[in-house]
Amino acid sequence: MSGVVARFAELKIDALLVSALPNIRYLTGFTGSNALLLVTPRDAILFTDPRYTIQSVKQTAGRAKAKTVRGPLVAAAAQAIASRKLKRIGFEAGRMLYDAWQRLKEAVPLGVSLRPVRGVVDELRMVKTDREIELIRQAVLTNSKAFESTLSRLRPGVSEREIAAELEYQMRRNGAERASFETIVALGPRTALPHAEPTEERFRGDQLLLIDMGATREGYCSDMTRTLFAGKPSRNVQSMYNAVLEAQLAAIDAVREGTTAGNVDRAARRVLAREGLGKAFVHSTGHGLGLEIHEPPRLGKKDATKLRAGMVITIEPGAYVEKVGGVRIEDTVLVTRTGCEVLTPTPKELTLL
Amino acid sequence: MSGVVARFAELKIDALLVSALPNIRYLTGFTGSNALLLVTPRDAILFTDPRYTIQSVKQTAGRAKAKTVRGPLVAAAAQAIASRKLKRIGFEAGRMLYDAWQRLKEAVPLGVSLRPVRGVVDELRMVKTDREIELIRQAVLTNSKAFESTLSRLRPGVSEREIAAELEYQMRRNGAERASFETIVALGPRTALPHAEPTEERFRGDQLLLIDMGATREGYCSDMTRTLFAGKPSRNVQSMYNAVLEAQLAAIDAVREGTTAGNVDRAARRVLAREGLGKAFVHSTGHGLGLEIHEPPRLGKKDATKLRAGMVITIEPGAYVEKVGGVRIEDTVLVTRTGCEVLTPTPKELTLL
Repeated sequence: MSGVVARFAELKIDALLVSALPNIRYLTGFTGSNALLLVTPRDAILFTDPRYTIQSVKQTAGRAKAKTVRGPLVAAAAQAIASRKLKRIGFEAGRMLYDAWQRLKEAVPLGVSLRPVRGVVDELRMVKTDREIELIRQAVLTNSKAFESTLSRLRPGVSEREIAAELEYQMRRNGAERASFETIVALGPRTALPHAEPTEERFRGDQLLLIDMGATREGYCSDMTRTLFAGKPSRNVQSMYNAVLEAQLAAIDAVREGTTAGNVDRAARRVLAREGLGKAFVHSTGHGLGLEIHEPPRLGKKDATKLRAGMVITIEPGAYVEKVGGVRIEDTVLVTRTGCEVLTPTPKELTLL
Repeated sequence: MSGVVARFAELKIDALLVSALPNIRYLTGFTGSNALLLVTPRDAILFTDPRYTIQSVKQTAGRAKAKTVRGPLVAAAAQAIASRKLKRIGFEAGRMLYDAWQRLKEAVPLGVSLRPVRGVVDELRMVKTDREIELIRQAVLTNSKAFESTLSRLRPGVSEREIAAELEYQMRRNGAERASFETIVALGPRTALPHAEPTEERFRGDQLLLIDMGATREGYCSDMTRTLFAGKPSRNVQSMYNAVLEAQLAAIDAVREGTTAGNVDRAARRVLAREGLGKAFVHSTGHGLGLEIHEPPRLGKKDATKLRAGMVITIEPGAYVEKVGGVRIEDTVLVTRTGCEVLTPTPKELTLL
């Protein structure tokens, strides 16, 4: 909480209204699905509804005062703002709905100004504590174990959906609370869809297989993609795979404290462009992750964010060619002073079995 | 799409910018995670990013023109607004982030006004088509099958988390794309938390067990809660169960076309108040569901929404007593002209085994 309050003077605010649930969890420990948090220099009040009365008191103890509210949470927040005579209220412009802002504006006393702020808590969250890194390590290992135990039992005839179900089941068996996002399993030409949803399509045994998955441990995410070929891949597929792998290794090589996110992205992009796959690489090279699967920084062409030791990011270049297929290789990576540590232990080999 | 355009005159708008993804899916079929939809009386344009180029064209064919955009989608929407000379643009006030609204405001030409509208697509979605009802029926049956096959193999020693993992695995095995929300499994006094997250707590065999789960089929959700007791429940638990069951049946009995959502809520609340459990019932009696697990109407005390045939809602009263435990019983229900059809086939008996 003190990291937030430390920025009040510079932002010219007397209090911050936090509406993004992952930010609320980060600051207070509360994991419910409905809350607002008012942070002032003297206290922090968490507003939630009666479903979470017991849970909110327990989870936020020592960090915030939990208050159960019947009716809209913004109305209760406005009341707290009024009774504390707070005047300049920061709100999370990229995280609050227009309607909530509108209602808040109408509920606060005259003379109170609402000031859009951006990324205050999100920026704090970028550099992880040792405890957070430990949880991400666990999430990564849980993920890799589930991948290996599923893949070792993969046989022709199973559907994309069944593979996804098994992966998620194995993640939970290995200690995950849940998958950190909807597991992607794509076969054959469907690998050309970067965000394919699993279908009833069945594994034939001599085709591309792309799996993008993540596990969550105590709220913290992992993210990994592997592309495999069962049997002997065509020369085309093999060279696409080699190019993406080279791009991924080049990007990993570029990661270190002090470089920019954009530099890492360019390292991957350069390799793929050289291999004639520049246009086939349709997304950014990676993203931060933690309590959310997508967090800043974004490793895109123009991102000038300086990497810092303790950030955890994904490195995941890909190439997608309609009707042929796609290749993506992704690891979860910890930025260190001198370079980085690749947390994901799963091998990166194309050939399966 | 025509149902949306039909309301333009009354809302005094020339176009509607749809930002809620489930609303976009409803109108166009697009299932990706990033999109904006501009609906005009003459056409509909879906903006998305390059990850979804192939998928968006395929899914929206005949319903919208898919356009892949590099950079912010609101900027592309603003351009389309300018080139079509549209003047009064409705936006989804309860679904658009403050920042997106702000950016849109700055990107549209002078003379264009942005008008907050509420619930336009959401209201259309309340009454389901036959096809939608069929998918919800499938989701309900998938859910019940998974519940039964898991429960029949339940043995002392398994953890809440393992039960949740098995339920979700069975849902997928039975055809679900995913769980419609995070499965709730709570044992003993933890049942008093209406939204308990599964923990490592292990099933002892003579305690309360609450399961709240849902399955998704082609995007459509189901929702069911059962509370069970393995062994012989105390008189206290048994009478709490009887009261909640009576409240649930009274609410189901009150459902019919023409009554209000509030009336149904009151029917449940009346029974629990009579049994001295009025204060233990800390949430509303139910909610609509469809492409989202929570949709309008909300079956709360003050909700005046008139129920209509074709709406699908949950009926889920509960009672929660700290340190003792909680009971909730929930079915997915289809509103009909003369009453309702309870879609959930799973029995509502307290005693397990």
